[in-house]
Amino acid sequence: MSIIADLINFFQSFPGIGPRQARRFVYHLAGSEPKSLEEISKLLVRFHKEVSRCSTCFRIFEGKSNECVVCSNPNRDDSKLLVIEKDADLENMERNQIFDGRYHVLGGLLSPLRPEIQEKLRLKELYKRVEANKKLGEIVLALSATTEGDMTKRYIEKILEPIIKSRKFKISNLGRGLSTGTELEYSDRDTLKHAFENRK
Amino acid sequence: MSIIADLINFFQSFPGIGPRQARRFVYHLAGSEPKSLEEISKLLVRFHKEVSRCSTCFRIFEGKSNECVVCSNPNRDDSKLLVIEKDADLENMERNQIFDGRYHVLGGLLSPLRPEIQEKLRLKELYKRVEANKKLGEIVLALSATTEGDMTKRYIEKILEPIIKSRKFKISNLGRGLSTGTELEYSDRDTLKHAFENRK
Amino acid sequence: MSIIADLINFFQSFPGIGPRQARRFVYHLAGSEPKSLEEISKLLVRFHKEVSRCSTCFRIFEGKSNECVVCSNPNRDDSKLLVIEKDADLENMERNQIFDGRYHVLGGLLSPLRPEIQEKLRLKELYKRVEANKKLGEIVLALSATTEGDMTKRYIEKILEPIIKSRKFKISNLGRGLSTGTELEYSDRDTLKHAFENRK
Amino acid sequence: MSIIADLINFFQSFPGIGPRQARRFVYHLAGSEPKSLEEISKLLVRFHKEVSRCSTCFRIFEGKSNECVVCSNPNRDDSKLLVIEKDADLENMERNQIFDGRYHVLGGLLSPLRPEIQEKLRLKELYKRVEANKKLGEIVLALSATTEGDMTKRYIEKILEPIIKSRKFKISNLGRGLSTGTELEYSDRDTLKHAFENRK
Repeated sequence: MSIIADLINFFQSFPGIGPRQARRFVYHLAGSEPKSLEEISKLLVRFHKEVSRCSTCFRIFEGKSNECVVCSNPNRDDSKLLVIEKDADLENMERNQIFDGRYHVLGGLLSPLRPEIQEKLRLKELYKRVEANKKLGEIVLALSATTEGDMTKRYIEKILEPIIKSRKFKISNLGRGLSTGTELEYSDRDTLKHAFENRK
Repeated sequence: MSIIADLINFFQSFPGIGPRQARRFVYHLAGSEPKSLEEISKLLVRFHKEVSRCSTCFRIFEGKSNECVVCSNPNRDDSKLLVIEKDADLENMERNQIFDGRYHVLGGLLSPLRPEIQEKLRLKELYKRVEANKKLGEIVLALSATTEGDMTKRYIEKILEPIIKSRKFKISNLGRGLSTGTELEYSDRDTLKHAFENRK
Repeated sequence: MSIIADLINFFQSFPGIGPRQARRFVYHLAGSEPKSLEEISKLLVRFHKEVSRCSTCFRIFEGKSNECVVCSNPNRDDSKLLVIEKDADLENMERNQIFDGRYHVLGGLLSPLRPEIQEKLRLKELYKRVEANKKLGEIVLALSATTEGDMTKRYIEKILEPIIKSRKFKISNLGRGLSTGTELEYSDRDTLKHAFENRK
Repeated sequence: MSIIADLINFFQSFPGIGPRQARRFVYHLAGSEPKSLEEISKLLVRFHKEVSRCSTCFRIFEGKSNECVVCSNPNRDDSKLLVIEKDADLENMERNQIFDGRYHVLGGLLSPLRPEIQEKLRLKELYKRVEANKKLGEIVLALSATTEGDMTKRYIEKILEPIIKSRKFKISNLGRGLSTGTELEYSDRDTLKHAFENRK
C-alpha cells in the first residue's frame, strides 16, 4: 500500500472521520514542516510509553503510575462507585465536580446492533471490583439516556444481582427528567413521566 | 393595502413563518378552488363563536361550554394544580396521561428580553385560583428548563409566597435530570448535577 | 368534522407544513381578535374575485384585468418567451431585472415519481402560444437544474419539435456552470463539465 | 507541555477540527495497539521523504520524481493552463476527466480578511511559468464562485496583464450559471444573470 493511502486509512479510523476529510488531513500534513511531522512521530512512539490506562478504573492518564489521580487519592469516598461509558464522560463529571467517589470506565455500551462489543467492555472487571470492595454502599450507573445506556444498565443489574443479594448495597441510576433546554411541547412520554414523578 | 400583501402579512404573523413562506402560502391559495376558500372563510368566522377559552384553566377547546373537559371533570384531583406555559404543552401531558389533577395555562413565559409580556400572562388569575381553592395540596410548576422557564418559576414562587405562609401546600417543579437521548459527554453542569442528586 | 380539525387540515395542505405546525397555527388563531379573523375571512372570500391568473402567462396577479402587467406591456420583447416553473421563480427573475421578454408559467415540473402532474402543467397552452406567435425568435427554458427540470426540458423540446421544424426559432436553456458559492472540491461532474465548457 | 496536550494541539491544527474532537482523537489513539502507532509514526517520518510537491504545478504526489504524472505526461496539451486553488479541486477535475492541459495549484485564495495569505500563494511562480511558456494559448482560472475566488481572479488578471499585452493568449474563467441542484426561486441575481446570459 502507498504511504498516502495508509495515512488516509489511519485517519479514517478516527471517530467521525470519512474518506474525504481523511484525505484533507493528509494534504494538510503535506503543508507542515518535515520537522514538525518528526516531532509528532516521536509523540506517537512515546504515547503508549507515557500514557497509561489506570489499572483500577481504566481511564487514560498521563504518567506511568499504576493508578490515576482519582483512584490513588485517599480522600475520595470508597463507598460510592460510579460506572460510566467513556473517558470523555468521566472528565465532564470531574470538570463539573459532581461526584467525590470512585469511577469505573466501561469502555463503551452494549448495543443490540453490535453484540460483539460486549467482550470489549470491562464488565468482568466491574464484577470483581464490586465483589472485592467490602466498603461499597452504592453503585451509580451513570449511563446515557439512550437504548444502549438502558440495555447496559439492565445487564449490569443482572450480573451484580448475586452479590447484591448476599450483601447490602444500593444500585442507583442518574435521575431522569428535564435536561437544560428541554421544552415540554416536544418531550417524549418517558421524559415527561420521569420529570413529573421526580418533581420536587 | 393590497389583498395579496394583507394575506402575506397575516401569514407572517404565524409562529415560525417569514415573508418568503408567507408568500408561498398565498400562491398556494391561488391554486385552491374558490369554493374551498369560501369554506375556510366560514370556518374563520365561526372560529371564535365555536371555539372557547376555558374560563378556569384558559386552554382552548371546541364547544361553547364555560369550562373544558378537564376542568369540568369531577374525577380529576382538585388537590393538584399544574401550571404550564401553553396549550401544546398541556396536550402533550394529556396525550401521555402524565397527570390527573387540574391545569392552569399561563399563555407564555416571562422573558428578560420582552418585559411587556408579563401583563399578558395569567398570573393574577393563578393567584386568585390558588387563593380560592382550599383543597389545594400541591402546585406543580411544569415549565421548560430554559432561562424563561426559570425566571417564570421564581416569579410565581414569589407572588404565591403570602398564601403559602398562611396555608399548607407544596410548590414543586418538574424533576431535572437526563432527558431521553441525553449524552453525558455533552451535558452541562446543571443537568449533570441534577441527574446525580436525583439518582434513584 | 370539528372546526379545529378542519383548520388543522387546511393548514396542513400548505407547502412545507406538517400536523404539528398546523396545530400551532390554530392555537395562534385562538389568540387573535375575533375582528381580525373576520377581516381575514373577508380577504379569503374576496381572494378569487380580486386576484386573477393571467390568461396569457398564467401567473397570479392582483386585479381583474385579463392579463398581467408583463403580458399587457407593449414594450416587452415579443420575440423571446421564457418558460418557467412557478410564480416565485418568475418574481425572482423580474425582481432582478434579468429578462425583458414574455413569460409562460408551467405551474410545476414533470416528475418521474408523480406522473399524474403532467396534466396539470400548462403544456398544451405553451404549444398553442408558440404556434400562434409568429414573431417568436427564441424560447428560453428557465427550469431548475434538477432531474425534474431536465425531464420537463426534454419533454417540451419534444412537443415543440414539429413547430420548430416548420419555422425558424431557437430553443435555449439557462447556462449551466458554477452558481454563486459553488466550490470546486465538492462539485459534481456535470457542474464541472458545464463550467469548463462554458468558460469565457 | 504534556504529550496528551501536544497531540490535542496537533489534531486541532487539522482543517475543521476543534478542541473537543481533537481530544476524542487522542482517546481513540489510546485504544490502538502500540504497534500500530509505531507504524503510523514511521509513516509520518517517511512522509516528506516519499511524498513530493511537483516542482511545476505544486500538487502533492507520491514518489520522488521532480514532476507529477500530469506535468511529466508528454500527451497533455501545453497550450492550456488551468489555475486552481488546491489539490482536492485538481483531483476532482482529474477524476471527472474535465481537462487535458496543464495545472497550476495556487495553494489557497486571496482573502480580504487574511491579507497575509498572499505571500503563501504561488503567484510569482504562476507569472514565471506563463512568461516562460511560449506555446500558451489559454489560461483557465478555475476558482470557486466566492468572494475569495473573485478577488484572486482579478489579482491574477492584473499581474498577468503585461505579458498578455505583448503576447496573444486568452484568460478565461469557468462558466457561471446554474449548478446541479440549483433552484431558480432561491438563486441570487449574479447566478440568474450569468445563467441567462450564458443560455444555449
